[in-house]
Amino acid sequence: MNKKLLAAGLALALGAGFSLNAAAQAKPETLVKQRQSAMTLQGKYFGPLGGMAQGKVPYDANIVARNAGYLEVLTKLAWDGFTPDTANEKTRALPEIYTDSAGFKAANERLQAGVANLVTAAKSGNEATVKAAIGNIGKECGSCHDKYRQK
Amino acid sequence: MNKKLLAAGLALALGAGFSLNAAAQAKPETLVKQRQSAMTLQGKYFGPLGGMAQGKVPYDANIVARNAGYLEVLTKLAWDGFTPDTANEKTRALPEIYTDSAGFKAANERLQAGVANLVTAAKSGNEATVKAAIGNIGKECGSCHDKYRQK
Repeated sequence: MNKKLLAAGLALALGAGFSLNAAAQAKPETLVKQRQSAMTLQGKYFGPLGGMAQGKVPYDANIVARNAGYLEVLTKLAWDGFTPDTANEKTRALPEIYTDSAGFKAANERLQAGVANLVTAAKSGNEATVKAAIGNIGKECGSCHDKYRQK
Repeated sequence: MNKKLLAAGLALALGAGFSLNAAAQAKPETLVKQRQSAMTLQGKYFGPLGGMAQGKVPYDANIVARNAGYLEVLTKLAWDGFTPDTANEKTRALPEIYTDSAGFKAANERLQAGVANLVTAAKSGNEATVKAAIGNIGKECGSCHDKYRQK
């Protein structure tokens, strides 16, 4: 592997300012951008499932299975971006995230458990079970936002 | 499932303006935000691997395996956000994405194949093979950005 070429490719690929050092702490604004990106994509893939559970969108088992699989990864990605040094960035994150970090972590884990439950439900092929699992995830989203996000 | 409660929870969870209708076409600015989010997260999880391949970061097989798994999902998420109706949004996307959609699609698929290759390499436990697979992904990132993204 030509290291110089790789370095040039990576610089091109990732743009200036991107840290290649896993050990280096990312800047607060980078952490915020990354965690907000995870939230945006959770919304992209959960939104249509919410619509199906509410009967506003035709039920589609293939989309449920695909999105549940995506969400299994996506719901793991935001949390390491909520570090205390991001508390002064302009976001809707409430200070309770840092003063009640155990409660925040538990909420993150309930979301992930809810998604794991949806993945299992999607494999069962039972529409009512799937819709209940979606509803449960929606409640976890809402209760976490209630506690830890500005209105 | 109480549909009213679910609807309220979803509205809280996803915020105003989020479409629950899978069939409704998302707005161009939403598509841009979502695809940029996917790019941001590709960078978050590919960056450290690039650092390892360059020898700038200590090699860590566990991080490689984890990030490769995340990237297997993340590299699927951006592409449906590049619709012609987003062409007037202020982004770095070049018009070639729409005039050469076959070439763009092929580049997306090469990236995904490169990540699949990294997942396999990570399972082999062979560090040199893993680093070569990382380098290959870096080249795909760079060549796609060269052709389809403004400098």
